[in-house]
Amino acid sequence: MTPWGGTVLQSIELSLSESEALLRAGSTGRIAISTPEGPHIIPVNYSLVADRVVVRTSPYSLLGTHASGTVLAFETDHFDHQQQRGWSVLVRGRGEVITDPATLQAIRQVWPPRPWAAGNRNLHVGIRLTEITGRRLGDGWDVMETLDGHTARAV
Amino acid sequence: MTPWGGTVLQSIELSLSESEALLRAGSTGRIAISTPEGPHIIPVNYSLVADRVVVRTSPYSLLGTHASGTVLAFETDHFDHQQQRGWSVLVRGRGEVITDPATLQAIRQVWPPRPWAAGNRNLHVGIRLTEITGRRLGDGWDVMETLDGHTARAV
Repeated sequence: MTPWGGTVLQSIELSLSESEALLRAGSTGRIAISTPEGPHIIPVNYSLVADRVVVRTSPYSLLGTHASGTVLAFETDHFDHQQQRGWSVLVRGRGEVITDPATLQAIRQVWPPRPWAAGNRNLHVGIRLTEITGRRLGDGWDVMETLDGHTARAV
Repeated sequence: MTPWGGTVLQSIELSLSESEALLRAGSTGRIAISTPEGPHIIPVNYSLVADRVVVRTSPYSLLGTHASGTVLAFETDHFDHQQQRGWSVLVRGRGEVITDPATLQAIRQVWPPRPWAAGNRNLHVGIRLTEITGRRLGDGWDVMETLDGHTARAV
């Protein structure tokens, strides 16, 4: 059978420190959660704090109601279509609702809430960094070059 | 309890035609697949063809071995950190391995393989467009403005 495949970009595993650096620099990603009806993907803002990927959500959202104790996958990436380059970092682990006041304080200091905007995203879900995998697509370039556009802290 | 939440960007549902237009213009996304060990997220190149989101993969990959008959979630998005805007389109449905020669021909015409690069991504997995949801984050702007950077066709 003739291979239909297009260009196979070399997919190279990143080091743990590269993966963590990319995670630390970013602020948007996606969480996948399995349900009886199959997986869902939810775009999120996140922060890397207290050794976790932390997201804010409403207690009434899919994440808010299902994440606690469930294995989640969190992914963040960057694709450069022109140069056929990219990277992707994946963190997997059980979601935990963060209630410890000291941890919440640490989160607020790194990721301040916006006092002028009311909101109901008052539930913090964290995924510990026990399972991190990073991949680079395409060879001969440094993933850290891509961070310029990613350091703006969104909320 | 004081709300910790940051800015709650208005999350507005996109129309079906807007969601399809965004899907059609893009070429990278992520697929979530549930496994007994929890969900995984796989970054993919994709094409919208034959009423499906189509991805190429190796028969030996996680997708290649698990996708057929399994409910998958495919997501593509765009985040503008500076302007606090973004959109996300989600397609969910059962993965099907595409073997029909006419369909494969239609795919090759829209998404040509690169003849000078050998590869083993010769398995085509499709997700029909029966469940599409699109969301816009932030208000007062047109999602179609973001398409300029997304029309380069990757493989």
